[in-house]
Amino acid sequence: MSETSNELPATVLSNTKPQADAKPQAETKPLSDTKPQAETNPLSEEELDQLDAWWRAANYLSVGQIYLLDNPLLRRPLSRDDIKPRLLGHWGTTPGLNFVYAHLNRAIRQRDLDTIFVAGPGHGGPGVVAGAYLDGTYSEIYSGIDRTVDGMRKLFRQFSFPGGIPSHAAPETPGSIHEGGELGYALSHAYGAAFDNPNLLVAAVVGDGEAETGPLATAWHSNKFLNPKTDGVVLPILHLNGYKIANPTVLARIPESELLELMRGYGYTPYLVSGGFDGEDPREVHKRMAATLDEILDRIAEIKAAAESGDLVDRPAWPMLILRTPKGWTCPKEIDGHPAENNWRSHQVPLADARDTEAHTRLLESWLQSYRPQELFEESGAPVPLIASHAPEGDRRMSANPVANGGLLRRDLRLPDFRDYAVEVPAPGETVAEATRVLGGWLRDVMAENPHDFRLFGPDETASNRLQDVYEVTGKQWNAEYWPIDSDNHLAPSGRVMEVLSEHQCQGWLEGYLLTGRHGVLNSYEAFIHIVDSMFNQHAKWLKSARDIPWRRPVASLNYLLSSHVWRQDHNGASHQDPGFIDHVMNKKADIVRVYLPFDANTLLSTYDHCLRSVDYVNVVVAGKQPSPNWLSMPDAIAHCTRGIGVFDWAGTERDGEEPDVVLGCAGDIPTLEVLAAADILRRRLPDLAVRVVNVVDLMRLQSEGEHPHGLNDREYDALFTTDKPVIFAYHGYPWLIHRLTYRRAGHDNLHVRGYKEEGTTTTPFDMVMLNDLDRYHLVIDVLDRVPGLAAREAAFRQEMVDARLHARQYTRDHGEDIPEVAEWRWGGGARSTRIDTTGGDND
Amino acid sequence: MSETSNELPATVLSNTKPQADAKPQAETKPLSDTKPQAETNPLSEEELDQLDAWWRAANYLSVGQIYLLDNPLLRRPLSRDDIKPRLLGHWGTTPGLNFVYAHLNRAIRQRDLDTIFVAGPGHGGPGVVAGAYLDGTYSEIYSGIDRTVDGMRKLFRQFSFPGGIPSHAAPETPGSIHEGGELGYALSHAYGAAFDNPNLLVAAVVGDGEAETGPLATAWHSNKFLNPKTDGVVLPILHLNGYKIANPTVLARIPESELLELMRGYGYTPYLVSGGFDGEDPREVHKRMAATLDEILDRIAEIKAAAESGDLVDRPAWPMLILRTPKGWTCPKEIDGHPAENNWRSHQVPLADARDTEAHTRLLESWLQSYRPQELFEESGAPVPLIASHAPEGDRRMSANPVANGGLLRRDLRLPDFRDYAVEVPAPGETVAEATRVLGGWLRDVMAENPHDFRLFGPDETASNRLQDVYEVTGKQWNAEYWPIDSDNHLAPSGRVMEVLSEHQCQGWLEGYLLTGRHGVLNSYEAFIHIVDSMFNQHAKWLKSARDIPWRRPVASLNYLLSSHVWRQDHNGASHQDPGFIDHVMNKKADIVRVYLPFDANTLLSTYDHCLRSVDYVNVVVAGKQPSPNWLSMPDAIAHCTRGIGVFDWAGTERDGEEPDVVLGCAGDIPTLEVLAAADILRRRLPDLAVRVVNVVDLMRLQSEGEHPHGLNDREYDALFTTDKPVIFAYHGYPWLIHRLTYRRAGHDNLHVRGYKEEGTTTTPFDMVMLNDLDRYHLVIDVLDRVPGLAAREAAFRQEMVDARLHARQYTRDHGEDIPEVAEWRWGGGARSTRIDTTGGDND
Repeated sequence: MSETSNELPATVLSNTKPQADAKPQAETKPLSDTKPQAETNPLSEEELDQLDAWWRAANYLSVGQIYLLDNPLLRRPLSRDDIKPRLLGHWGTTPGLNFVYAHLNRAIRQRDLDTIFVAGPGHGGPGVVAGAYLDGTYSEIYSGIDRTVDGMRKLFRQFSFPGGIPSHAAPETPGSIHEGGELGYALSHAYGAAFDNPNLLVAAVVGDGEAETGPLATAWHSNKFLNPKTDGVVLPILHLNGYKIANPTVLARIPESELLELMRGYGYTPYLVSGGFDGEDPREVHKRMAATLDEILDRIAEIKAAAESGDLVDRPAWPMLILRTPKGWTCPKEIDGHPAENNWRSHQVPLADARDTEAHTRLLESWLQSYRPQELFEESGAPVPLIASHAPEGDRRMSANPVANGGLLRRDLRLPDFRDYAVEVPAPGETVAEATRVLGGWLRDVMAENPHDFRLFGPDETASNRLQDVYEVTGKQWNAEYWPIDSDNHLAPSGRVMEVLSEHQCQGWLEGYLLTGRHGVLNSYEAFIHIVDSMFNQHAKWLKSARDIPWRRPVASLNYLLSSHVWRQDHNGASHQDPGFIDHVMNKKADIVRVYLPFDANTLLSTYDHCLRSVDYVNVVVAGKQPSPNWLSMPDAIAHCTRGIGVFDWAGTERDGEEPDVVLGCAGDIPTLEVLAAADILRRRLPDLAVRVVNVVDLMRLQSEGEHPHGLNDREYDALFTTDKPVIFAYHGYPWLIHRLTYRRAGHDNLHVRGYKEEGTTTTPFDMVMLNDLDRYHLVIDVLDRVPGLAAREAAFRQEMVDARLHARQYTRDHGEDIPEVAEWRWGGGARSTRIDTTGGDND
Repeated sequence: MSETSNELPATVLSNTKPQADAKPQAETKPLSDTKPQAETNPLSEEELDQLDAWWRAANYLSVGQIYLLDNPLLRRPLSRDDIKPRLLGHWGTTPGLNFVYAHLNRAIRQRDLDTIFVAGPGHGGPGVVAGAYLDGTYSEIYSGIDRTVDGMRKLFRQFSFPGGIPSHAAPETPGSIHEGGELGYALSHAYGAAFDNPNLLVAAVVGDGEAETGPLATAWHSNKFLNPKTDGVVLPILHLNGYKIANPTVLARIPESELLELMRGYGYTPYLVSGGFDGEDPREVHKRMAATLDEILDRIAEIKAAAESGDLVDRPAWPMLILRTPKGWTCPKEIDGHPAENNWRSHQVPLADARDTEAHTRLLESWLQSYRPQELFEESGAPVPLIASHAPEGDRRMSANPVANGGLLRRDLRLPDFRDYAVEVPAPGETVAEATRVLGGWLRDVMAENPHDFRLFGPDETASNRLQDVYEVTGKQWNAEYWPIDSDNHLAPSGRVMEVLSEHQCQGWLEGYLLTGRHGVLNSYEAFIHIVDSMFNQHAKWLKSARDIPWRRPVASLNYLLSSHVWRQDHNGASHQDPGFIDHVMNKKADIVRVYLPFDANTLLSTYDHCLRSVDYVNVVVAGKQPSPNWLSMPDAIAHCTRGIGVFDWAGTERDGEEPDVVLGCAGDIPTLEVLAAADILRRRLPDLAVRVVNVVDLMRLQSEGEHPHGLNDREYDALFTTDKPVIFAYHGYPWLIHRLTYRRAGHDNLHVRGYKEEGTTTTPFDMVMLNDLDRYHLVIDVLDRVPGLAAREAAFRQEMVDARLHARQYTRDHGEDIPEVAEWRWGGGARSTRIDTTGGDND
């Protein structure tokens, strides 16, 4: 499979079906039309037979997966022992997914479409697996599960079985970029896949349960961010089967007129297909679906052609399909006197005691036989030619499309040499920079060098996070209305920056973009990245599973850049303070997650270069955006970041060959600043005290080597932190994380961590660190208190530090800003001409 | 003010304005009308003068808060020193909020409305504070900030100032139930407040930035869950000022026709008010706004009357208002050649260097003077009578409405005696129950006893979590369409159960419900509660702040019931496995959060009784829903839960007066089961080994008493766990949490924790614990390996355990279910007649 599938001829999305009736472009219909359901039947009898046979086969295979251990083709009467002892999995959504898949296959073959399938409804696993099996892809990838009776038996057995596959689309599913476990992200993933894939059609089935989630409800608006020419097409298929687990769904229970208004309000042209109710022959529904899908694809081709030719000016009202079919379509109408088909009761396993109740065993058998398997599969077990030939060819199969195994298409980024962007650091702390702004300069050139496969995502915070230099080479992609004033908004019909005030959208788009072989960064405020905690979970789980699947190729890492962090929320107050995303991330498997805390511009550059080269990780980088001292020259920064942890020789007062009296550890920009300020006080006031300063950029270095691949071995750790000297550790986040990372270390009992304790309100920068006992004065007090005998010997000095804190606190209350000795402090004494602090806070 | 405000006469929402022109009920207009903007002016000149003066005063006070340290009424020329050194806060959204507040005040006075105000847009703090100050409420609550010149100076100074108040609505803000820090929850909170408050009008301003978030995008659908008769009314006011931080907003940049369709599609009747652009006189906008608000309130009164009389059958298309005004309305048109008013540049502080640039100081002065403060405030600093009299009276003031200080209205729940719901436990493990199902029986009667102020919220999982007994006394409130088949769906126009497939909605509704003085429970799958991690954060921060605000009265705790937990996701696979919400919760302040792990039916009952009696906490309760052994009789359960931690004497083999050889700790239902099974093996096979079993229900007991109010002191802890014996601890979640809670304990170096290690896939219950080394056999191996000398002495026994695991693993692979000796195991030997395991998995 080639890397060029996104360079296919632009005709791919054009109408090339045999009975082409596409209007010439000049006759393009007004783009805001709303289409009711089609009334003509485009299907020949042979095509109809084929569609229906394929659908029956997929349904048969789906039911088989849920129930059968053996006897896959019912070549003997179904017996208790043929049925799984624990009936797991989900039927309800599956026949609808199979129906859509069947019709897409026809369209792909007729129009040579480049298409992937996103199965949004929860637990549609049996369906997408059945589709991949009928495509032949499944057997190509999993050789044991071949197209024989025995292969089918294995296919059935593995489903929701110990050591097998889960009940939803998953990394194990060929053709999937979307896990069907946690709901809400189907459309965001679909749009993420479509960006920069101009010839791709992403068919995204949205379940009406999923449609109730917040992330899905806003994801419809993705169409305002899609460029009709340079991006691909998303066809949302809202599948109304009426029920979720145990309730009707909202969108199935509003008047059709209201639903159509909602979809038009979201900016789509809705098309309707409804059928299969009250025993309607599915063949009739096939006809309507085929006709409607043809109309939709014609319309898409028209829009793409108009975009291609430049005739399309306004945002098009892209088609979307509303498909209304019964939940559990084709399962028994009633079971034990309760409705099953077209009812929430068919959500999971409609015949829960098929193994233990003879009547249910027989009902299951007749249900399976209702698909007439003898017509669908050869004696060998292989699908009959009518069905096998319904699959598109090669990579055109949705289950084999390389876009859905993005690692196949991923190319390394062209990365400008980050050393060229270094800030000058004649001596530690001598110069000042906004770290993220410096990174923005490099990201600008990353974008310029990689104009088709790198994007920056953010919830309206890219400029607030000081990355605005990227606008020198690109814009914020925007396809809603433009106003004259927008000339200075950096909006553009096609651009590398994606901004929408929804962390869910940003994350979902980025995931879709990465899983289809591209690269990207999500920048966000640190506190609010918790909004996507659960999405991170699911992506990390995807990466973990995908690593163990040989045919899945590595994808680019998901890179977070978290700024506007907990320590600098001057006017935003407590609501904007939360460093706990790091803690959340740390729960996931060590081979997936990386956390970096670069503390100045050069360390941030070095760190990010590393992140953009990596694959299959989630990299969390927390960095400051405010003017702040630069501590390391670029050569030193590279050396330090390569080690991930190290001693600041220049800051300590150790004597060669002797262990220090105390170790000051730090991780994060503000903790590093405060530790250095404390070290500065100590070296001036207690020159005989042997102080070592250790900085941690790569948080994983603190863990044991057995816990994380980056972990230091105990000898290395002890060499840095000693085994018995007090360690005062100033940490960016919640202090217990440092304890958790180090509790197995020899010196752990001597480790005292200062971090964020959920104490913060409207304040100044220094007041904020004082509130949490992380300030330089308190760190000095900690040293005095922890080094044996020192507090008693230096009681006056200790009191001076206590007084200094009180004075600093009172000063902020009186003046509304930090005391000059702090604001103007610089390493090595003397005041800096420019204040480190600025008058403004975050932009949010 | 009283506890009876939700029992006001039903006429409150009726049209009682003097110039009443409400149609008699028989002439009720069709309920799906869409209204354009009103064209008549209902305002007398005096009313118009009053509205405009109030609005100018609120704007003046808002600008003053952002900029001024002193000279609050400009009684001398504005000088540099009058201006804050750090200019923080946000202007952009504020004039719009003030505009809405002004008009609501008029309506409240004219119609005697019972109204609260939800300020959704980010950082509208200056506005809501100004409103409360003009209402007089602010000075009543904060006596130092009185209605004098000096009080105004303090009002200004405290805003976004060290030790002061944040830049958004917050607990400190009178009348607020909604923090404006993290965006997306305004409408959910508003609907939560409206439930069971039939005479309440919740005016919810939704910012067009916020409207892009997922939670807000789905919250519009809350109208399908509101009962027009028994609940109050939410009036959403979508405020389109066109920009978020640095970008235009989506809803401001779609055609008006599309926006109207969207709102109609969401089920509302949209009304439009637009104005203030291109220098239009605000007085003209006042007229349109007043007329439109009158129409809206007339319409609401009609709907309420129709609902009251029973004439309303279908869901009404409630009015909503689209208000389009310039961002930063009334600030300077241009600053330094850039547009300010009606531009994203007015989002935060339009004149960022007002202190340091003389021209900007003068511009700020003229901006302030443009509101003509001398007309607005007396010599004393008090608002002139025209303005003061614009405030409604007493509790009718939105800033003084007791609904927004819900603790004032909260009444204790009538709780049936949970002991009456106990399951019989003749001996440990002798009987089996589904813990959450037993709890459901009690919750049913809680609902019956508290029909107006207790609700159960869940994302379509109430029955899946086995709480379906509640449907014996109530239904799932549903005001979308009903179909004939719904007779067995437990849907009802008015009911105590709120189910929608959105954790965000559930959480937001519950928060709104609690903060307005009621009680509730949110039940969810454990893994997916991470979806609301960030909402939990914000609610916890609210509670923390509110505790320090004397006039805020305690509200009912936010109670989570997390079931379908990590260990029982048999067919759902890894996507449904995540016990990390506990870790997330633990980062918040100890005086806010409680985590309980009841391990059987009786301990769950006892725990939940405690939770429903508590206030101002977040209680996280994780419990099983599968059939599982009952370990403790109710008296024992009560004693154990009261202690929160304790020794299972019956399970151990200690000799009186001697320390055990090993401690087996457990927390959570599955870990407790496996520990007891391990203890059972040990007592039979190594009867001389002194084993102690310690169970933890209240996780906080493990922490030091200095860390958490529930923490054991070291003596108590050591008495349970010893200081030097090996402790093998089987824990429900990620193992490092136990280390984090105990790292200061003497015996910590001997503590070995088994928990979830992110190893799980499609499996059986016992296979799942084996994958994570938490199974009985592995726990026995742990004991053998940790008790000095034991492994060598019992090498054959150890090998037997290793073989047992391999055999059990292989058995599941072969048979798809757990080995009988595990599935049928019972305490004390012998097989149980009923298997503990069931064939089904979770319903999801």
